[in-house]
Formats: sequence, C-alpha cells, structure tokens
Amino acid sequence: MTNPVLVESTRGSLAECLYRGAYAVVDGDGAIVASAGNIERPMFPRSAIKVFQAIPLIETGAADRFGLSDADLSLACASHSGETGHVARAQAMLARAGLDAAQLECGCHWPFDVPVALALARTGDTPGQLHNNCSGKHAGFLCTAVHENETLDRYVAADHPVQARARQVIEDLTGTDLGADACGTDGCSIPTYAAPLRAFAMGFAKLVSGKAVAEDRARAGRRLIEACMAHPWEMSGTNRACLALMQAAPGRVFAKTGADGVYCGAIPELEFGFALKIDDGATRAAESLAAAIIGQAFASSDPDIARSYDALARTDLKNWEGLTVGEVRPVKPA
Amino acid sequence: MTNPVLVESTRGSLAECLYRGAYAVVDGDGAIVASAGNIERPMFPRSAIKVFQAIPLIETGAADRFGLSDADLSLACASHSGETGHVARAQAMLARAGLDAAQLECGCHWPFDVPVALALARTGDTPGQLHNNCSGKHAGFLCTAVHENETLDRYVAADHPVQARARQVIEDLTGTDLGADACGTDGCSIPTYAAPLRAFAMGFAKLVSGKAVAEDRARAGRRLIEACMAHPWEMSGTNRACLALMQAAPGRVFAKTGADGVYCGAIPELEFGFALKIDDGATRAAESLAAAIIGQAFASSDPDIARSYDALARTDLKNWEGLTVGEVRPVKPA
Repeated sequence: MTNPVLVESTRGSLAECLYRGAYAVVDGDGAIVASAGNIERPMFPRSAIKVFQAIPLIETGAADRFGLSDADLSLACASHSGETGHVARAQAMLARAGLDAAQLECGCHWPFDVPVALALARTGDTPGQLHNNCSGKHAGFLCTAVHENETLDRYVAADHPVQARARQVIEDLTGTDLGADACGTDGCSIPTYAAPLRAFAMGFAKLVSGKAVAEDRARAGRRLIEACMAHPWEMSGTNRACLALMQAAPGRVFAKTGADGVYCGAIPELEFGFALKIDDGATRAAESLAAAIIGQAFASSDPDIARSYDALARTDLKNWEGLTVGEVRPVKPA
Repeated sequence: MTNPVLVESTRGSLAECLYRGAYAVVDGDGAIVASAGNIERPMFPRSAIKVFQAIPLIETGAADRFGLSDADLSLACASHSGETGHVARAQAMLARAGLDAAQLECGCHWPFDVPVALALARTGDTPGQLHNNCSGKHAGFLCTAVHENETLDRYVAADHPVQARARQVIEDLTGTDLGADACGTDGCSIPTYAAPLRAFAMGFAKLVSGKAVAEDRARAGRRLIEACMAHPWEMSGTNRACLALMQAAPGRVFAKTGADGVYCGAIPELEFGFALKIDDGATRAAESLAAAIIGQAFASSDPDIARSYDALARTDLKNWEGLTVGEVRPVKPA
C-alpha cells in the first residue's frame, strides 16, 4: 500500500514537494474516527510518546517523593529547545534526587532551534548534556531509578529496570508485544519500539478516556498530559510548533513531535488520541498535518477552534529577503 | 504516476523513512541511459543549475574582462557554506567590477553548515549578504550587468536583462519554453523555472558532449564545469556532499545540489548529464541517490570508481552519543 500525499509545499503556481504519510485518530473505544494511509505498518514513535515513557515516574511515586512540579513533569515529557529555563529546570530536577548532569547518558547536541544555538555560541560556551532536548526525560528516568534504589549506570540500556518499565507501559497502552526485532536505538541512546500507528493513537485515547486501561495508569497519564498542556513551553520552546499547537486551545489539546516526521497527541474532551507519520520524516509536513488533524477533530464541536487549527496547518514559505514564495499546506487525500 | 522509493533510512532492523523520487541520466544524443519515476513532470531545479545561470558571465566576456579565475567561476556556480574563504572571494569578485556587498540583492541567512554558523556567532558577528550561499552567483550576475552597462537595481527581477539571459540559456539547454506559469521565486529572490527532470539532465549532457548546442555555449559550460571540478570547495564547502562527490573522482564528476531534494550533474568522459528530485525535498536522500547514480554510471567503465560512489551512497546514522543506530541507503526500484 502506497500512502497518500497528505501535505504539499508550493512555489509559484506549482507543487514543489509532496509529502506522503499516514494518520489515525482513535476514540476511547479503540474505534477509528479518521485515518489515511497504512496505519498498521510498524513505525518508530521516537519522542512523540515521551508521556508513555514518563508514566513510571508517576506510578513509582518518584515524582511525588522528589516534589516535582507540573512544569517539571512537562519537562520530563519534553523535546525542549535547550533554552536557559529548560537547562536550569533539568538541573534542578536532578538535584532533587541528589544528582547532577554527570549521571546523564543522553549525549550532547547543539540546540535544534537556531537562535538558541547561536545565542549559546555567542557566550563562548558549548552544549552539555543538560542542553540535550531529552534531558528532562532523562532526569525523570534517573529520579525513578534513585527512588527504586537501582543502579544508575547504563539506565539507557533496554534491560535496565527503567527501560523495562517504560517498555511495559508502551506494550500495555499499544496492546503490542515489543520484542528485540521491534527495537531501535533513539537519538538519546534509549530503546525506541516500533508498533502500528493506530496503536499509538489508541494508547493516547486510552489515557484521556480512561477506558481499557488500569485506573492508576490513566490517572498518571492524564496528570502528565495536563502538566504539558498547562506548561507547553517546558515541553517544547520558544516558537516551536508543539507550543503553537497547544496554545491555540489552552488546556484542550496535547500535541508532541517526534523525530523523522512523527506527531502524537490527544484531545481529552473528545477522548481522541492521534498519531501520524510522514513517510520521509519531514518535520514541516508533520507539523502541518498535526494541525489539520486537530482542526478536523474539532470541526463539528467547535468550528472556531477548528478554523484556528486549519490556519496553523498552512505556513507561508519566505525566502531570504522575506518574500513569500510559496506555502506548506495539507492536501485532502483523494 | 507514483514515483518509486529510491532511498530509505533504517533504525534497528526496520526501514524508518522512505524517500520517493525520480531521476534521469541522459547522453549527448538525448537518449535516456537510466531513469526511474516520472521524469517529465515539471520540477524546480533551484540551485542545481547555477552553471546554466553563470553561462552569460562567460558568453558576454565579463569573466575575462574582470579577470575572474577558475576558483572565482566555481564560486559563481556555488551554493557555498559562507566560510571565510567564500566570503572573501565573493567580495573580491565584486571589487573587480568596482562594486561591493551593498549592491547584492540575495538577502542574508546564517550559513547552513552548523559549525560555520556557530563559528560566526562566536565572533559576535551576524551574517551579511556575502555569507549568503548564492553570493558568488550574484557577484557573477553583477559583473555581467556592469560589463553590459545595465542598471544594477533589481537585477534579480525576471525582466532584468541578467535574468532574461539566464532564462534564454535554460530554455536553450532544456529545449523548453519557460513562461510565467513555470516561474517561481528562489531563496535568493531570482526566478527559478520548472521544466521536466529529463530536460535538465539533457542540458548537462549537451554541455559536456557539445552536441545539439552552439559551440560557444558548450565551451562556456565546459569551462564552468571544469572550474567547479578543479575547485570543488569554492562551489560547496568543508564536509559538504558536493565536495565529497567531486573529490571521489577528481576532474571526472560534476555534482551540484539544489534546495528541496534536487541534484544535477555531469560525467564529461561518458558525455552523461543527470538530474534527480526527491519528492519530499529531503537533502540526505538526494545526496545518497546522487552517489548511487554516479556509481551506476561508472559500473562498466571503471568498477573501482563505481565502488567508491556506492560507498558514498550509504551513510551511517549516528545518535548523540556517536552510536550507529541505522543508515541512509539507496533502494533499487522494484
């Protein structure tokens, strides 16, 4: 099955780039509300399911023991931009568990956001592990390991209890057995497990509906999702798409990017979960499609909000002089 | 027609991203040597045909009048990285025509190459128009306009003689009439014209074979292509794919990237021109496919060179800790 073109970019009067992909919107009963393309093909969700990976931080009691705030929990689910506030918060989370950046095993990278990277370079500094977009997630992992009296060494390995707990949550929420054949290594060195797109959408629907999932798990998931919606900057950063997608309907939409063209999210009031993957991994197309999916979901219940997201789904392409030369926009599948 | 998957990226044992596209390899007689996908669909070549756009710099006599070196001519065909040597050379080219950066209309952007951008930021400086990857091309445009006693103002506009000459060359080499409906605006504000992929490949084949093209034009094109092959760094930059593709067979391969997933090139000894477009505009896939096409072209005449390019076509994907987590690699079309 060839996935349909779901997004295009234009230049002048012509389509210049075509983005194929698949998406699924699933309700609390596991029913498909909307979809396009092959939603059963296994795909790596990458960072789009950091909420799933953070659930043990709540379930073990580690978050409460160390007094983590909602903003901390948002950072634990973040692909953040490595801005000063993100770095300081990750460091403070580690300090609450008696740790520092030396225990992190996420690696270093320059902040993805160009202005943030340039600002860091101007100070003469280079990025440390706290700048890694995953440092909040890793701080959460380490808090859980400390709380459980586990070794901290190689907490990123698939057979460490931290990763075993995360895998068990993902298996539960997706209803999928995740063996070594479904396992890849993510950018920050932890395992990422491939499962059908539909299953990831279903996992988010379970959390926001509380259906087909243990009550404590749903409560933990909702606490994280609500923390992210209340503190979207901690989960993303200045000018980031996730921030715009959550600020357009504050407290009503959860949306999280993943590398290589993934988005997952949830609309609690509708009990919807969604997941999308652009075949080729293009972020700009994934962002457009995420907005379009959310707009479509609100079409009947809140047309004003739907229009806001439809507008977010279209982005002008500007050249170096600031001239508009085209746009990125969703395409209705044929 | 749906273009085939030509490149994939893997993670663990699974394909993670799929890149569809089309390519054409054409010989001096205009015959298709190899192809995949829809090679008749109009596409914007963007920066991949800067050689075509620089031909009037030779044909008008401007390059000789201002004593431009082969390295200067390579810069006139470049999407350079904005390194110190590129900036200085663009400035020197302008100075030869009595101009400076104030006459440029290409706009400013931070160098695409992250280490170069960070190094610039560390100096406390911000990029000027000379840092624009197209500044050498624009310096060439301005040299031509000065030589022809034309107004310099708005030399980027489609109806300025500079752009009219470039369009005439593109029409001639591609055998295509390029009207307003085929015209988009490029990143540096000049027109970019859409034509079939096959036609761009044919244009490069015409230049290196000297067939079906005026002798002076072929000579001008070959002079530029040879200048780029002799000075590939000036046409690209440190660690750039174009540099690696030309250094793997010095003086025997011309390869030039274009934004949004385009590559064009030529193999003079075989009288081949080639062009490719990845549907979604992914640069990493375009670079892989360009290497694969060149490897395939040399398969019978020079198996050692073919193997070098086959190796260049595969790139390990490393995570932030430097672990290999997958690879980008060409896929044989079904």
